[in-house]
Amino acid sequence: MGEYRIAVLPGDGIGKEVTKGAVEILKAIGDRFHHQFHFSYGLIGGEAIDQEGTPLPDQTLEMCKKSDAVLLGAVGGPKWDRNPPHLRPEKGLLQIRKEMNLFANLRPVKFYESLVDSSPLKPTVIQNVDFMIVRELTGGLYFGKPSERRVEQGEEAVVDTLFYKREEIKRIIEAAFMLAKRRKKKVTSVDKANVLESSRMWREVAEEVAKRFPDVELEHMLVDNAAMQLIRNPKQFDVIVTENMFGDILSDEASMLTGSLGMLPSASLSMTGPALYEPIHGSAPDLAGQNKANPIATILSAAMMLRFSFGMNEEADAIEKAVEQVLAAGYRTADVAQAGKRVVSTSEMVSEIKAAI
Amino acid sequence: MGEYRIAVLPGDGIGKEVTKGAVEILKAIGDRFHHQFHFSYGLIGGEAIDQEGTPLPDQTLEMCKKSDAVLLGAVGGPKWDRNPPHLRPEKGLLQIRKEMNLFANLRPVKFYESLVDSSPLKPTVIQNVDFMIVRELTGGLYFGKPSERRVEQGEEAVVDTLFYKREEIKRIIEAAFMLAKRRKKKVTSVDKANVLESSRMWREVAEEVAKRFPDVELEHMLVDNAAMQLIRNPKQFDVIVTENMFGDILSDEASMLTGSLGMLPSASLSMTGPALYEPIHGSAPDLAGQNKANPIATILSAAMMLRFSFGMNEEADAIEKAVEQVLAAGYRTADVAQAGKRVVSTSEMVSEIKAAI
Ligand SMILES: CC(C)[C@H](C(=O)O)[C@@H](O)C(=O)O
Ligand SMILES: CC(C)[C@H](C(=O)O)[C@@H](O)C(=O)O
Repeated sequence: MGEYRIAVLPGDGIGKEVTKGAVEILKAIGDRFHHQFHFSYGLIGGEAIDQEGTPLPDQTLEMCKKSDAVLLGAVGGPKWDRNPPHLRPEKGLLQIRKEMNLFANLRPVKFYESLVDSSPLKPTVIQNVDFMIVRELTGGLYFGKPSERRVEQGEEAVVDTLFYKREEIKRIIEAAFMLAKRRKKKVTSVDKANVLESSRMWREVAEEVAKRFPDVELEHMLVDNAAMQLIRNPKQFDVIVTENMFGDILSDEASMLTGSLGMLPSASLSMTGPALYEPIHGSAPDLAGQNKANPIATILSAAMMLRFSFGMNEEADAIEKAVEQVLAAGYRTADVAQAGKRVVSTSEMVSEIKAAI
Repeated sequence: MGEYRIAVLPGDGIGKEVTKGAVEILKAIGDRFHHQFHFSYGLIGGEAIDQEGTPLPDQTLEMCKKSDAVLLGAVGGPKWDRNPPHLRPEKGLLQIRKEMNLFANLRPVKFYESLVDSSPLKPTVIQNVDFMIVRELTGGLYFGKPSERRVEQGEEAVVDTLFYKREEIKRIIEAAFMLAKRRKKKVTSVDKANVLESSRMWREVAEEVAKRFPDVELEHMLVDNAAMQLIRNPKQFDVIVTENMFGDILSDEASMLTGSLGMLPSASLSMTGPALYEPIHGSAPDLAGQNKANPIATILSAAMMLRFSFGMNEEADAIEKAVEQVLAAGYRTADVAQAGKRVVSTSEMVSEIKAAI
């Protein structure tokens, strides 16, 4: 009967609604399995800018670092889109990832039989898809310096930098191999080695790491080809490991295999401190406050928290089974609505899942 | 009855087979419409490395610059994959794009009714899709310096650079608007403005250019969202304009809307000199020399040449109609094969298209 401190950062837009839902589910799990979850709340993103003048207030970061795990909603909105870079909601997200050293972002992509009609892809293509995207999250094009305007030969110009230390590449590729070892034993390393020097180092490191995992198959794939293969034949994948920006693009694309971005959870792990869990979708300002958002991605992120941070496999299974059961029973939020199914609100969906636990 | 000098660069792998096919089609067009096409051949890519010690020999570049248009196959293969960067086949392609100032890469994505079963996407999603990806081709992450290994605080590291001059962004966005004006009057500018400084400049420039095209609608879309929207609802697009690397990824992904990478042509335009036409697919080493490759992407690239470089709309239409007719008659290369269709070789496909002209 353990006690666990969970830091909750609702953020902006639908972030509030979906984290509220996930907290309810965690409470239900606590009741059923006799765990004590203590929730504390912090500001991040646009609301933090409005209230504290910064997208990641110190006290939020402190609270997260002292917690056992962090649950995050989403950040951003048109209100802050014209702000200078350091006063953008997304900066808060990038900073917390960096400050907590959350270098390994795990994004599972799993097929749901009951959502097969919601996907733009043919059922034969997506049936039984089950892979994991391992996205590097604290380096690459997102964090490299310089990232600035400059004047070059009298002309206005701009620069961003894709930077990696070899060690940063190594640890994320190792994470991918360790995961693959417990899965279908295949790693697809995605890069653009025919153009980028960073990708060539990436490929070298992947080959080196692979030597220490003789039972795991390593395959290299160019990022343009990967963007195609993800929809051409997604069943070929087990674990995909890639650079921050490539991972961002490919995982949003992959969400369509499950029918909606509203279905995909993620875990961001560090080597030492607490991990952070968040849906891969954004703050969807146009949906915010309407009780329409799909809470499942965040609820499944909470399940990942139970599994990865607290070692609670049974509890995580209970959430995942409840989600499947409710979908199978025909309940749908608007994003995955289909003819003949029952369209429910965010809170109704949460209640149904809670009832199923 | 004009005379036209066409430089042909077959390159590696299936590049040879597909350019051979396209040249045959151009000859058929010349015969039927009484044009004189003069073909001259040059080395590029892996074969150029083997024979001349460089992926882009000077005489190839000279020949291309003096031509009226260039037709390229594809470059690359496992034989050269471990070469140092300056001796890679892809370097030849990047160099010719840069040297000829081919900054605007046009990649049309068009639905073919007869190929609807070849796509992994549902027919309702892809029916009537017709958009153009305008990819910046001579800047961004592909060309920025530094692109190198370094030692940083005693640790091995690597860097690539995403660099743009404001003028480079302006001219590609202008190209997109000019195209959109003659199409459905909508430009979707794809960036990652919530993270990258270069994307923020991109967005600014897009807004500025848009003011001069009041009848064209401008929409901004984040690249992760774009990767999703391309398969969720591709009908929403008319002209997509984006950075070099983003364009590379998104256009390969978009090829799945038509069922195969083997269907997508491209034109690379400069402000001043001759343009270059090439399929968007690669050299497919595993297919090379087997007379199995789909020549349609290259044949449609030749049609784009007629239209864009020589102003021959009727001739271009003739090719495009012939392709549609042959597909409708049930002929398919292996990449788009379906039950009940007649699978043909590269040369048979070329003959059928020629016969239809
Ligand atoms: C909001 C944005 C900065 C973020 C990212 O690009 O990492 C989001 O798209 C994500 O994938 O978590
Ligand atoms: C071969 C490679 C360098 C090239 C690119 O990335 O530009 C290719 O993928 C393309 O899209 O034309």
